Amino acid sequence: MTDFSAVLDAVTFDAQGLVPAIAQDADNGQVLMMAWMNRETLVETLATGRAVYWSRSRKARWRKGDTSGHEQIVEEVRIDCDGDTLLLRVRQTGPACHTGRRACFFRRVENGALKDVGEG
Amino acid sequence: MTDFSAVLDAVTFDAQGLVPAIAQDADNGQVLMMAWMNRETLVETLATGRAVYWSRSRKARWRKGDTSGHEQIVEEVRIDCDGDTLLLRVRQTGPACHTGRRACFFRRVENGALKDVGEG
Repeated sequence: MTDFSAVLDAVTFDAQGLVPAIAQDADNGQVLMMAWMNRETLVETLATGRAVYWSRSRKARWRKGDTSGHEQIVEEVRIDCDGDTLLLRVRQTGPACHTGRRACFFRRVENGALKDVGEG
Repeated sequence: MTDFSAVLDAVTFDAQGLVPAIAQDADNGQVLMMAWMNRETLVETLATGRAVYWSRSRKARWRKGDTSGHEQIVEEVRIDCDGDTLLLRVRQTGPACHTGRRACFFRRVENGALKDVGEG
């Protein structure tokens, strides 16, 4: 198995041991969602090529798609300049959002209100 | 001035009173950076159309470009399904990253190592 210690050393995990991971559609660049990873789920993501997050609400490992079928195949993992954010380019099966939308960012601010723009 | 209370009510700020904001290039969809906002800098961003963040390291308001000249004009602000992440579509003047790269995500994981891919 590949040694990912160099990657882990470059990541700044927060006080909860987590790092935010942005998932972006590898095909069209759409930002699909943002979720969190700990050391173990980041390593599992890198080792298996499937996105595995840490659910802060359930306090549990969350392999995207295990329940919904809407898995993410990870084409690329990037890390930002100061090592505290990850960017994943993924191939998303079905919707990324639990609401059934393709992406989670389906509400836009317009004149102080939130407008549902549907497509995410 | 527009009342942004409906937007603020929809945002879940973390224990430090912050919410992550992803900045995406409005022209080509490139993810430029991620930074944080508090209530005040989010309102200032919405009211002025310029990205204003909260610097966690300096513990200070950070209007992007005030020092560097590399400002972000905000075309659109979106909020995700559970209200704990923002997505900004911006017009970025010059590089977004303090390293001089266009974007902060210029390192890619390859075979367990980090490769500088230059363009961010």
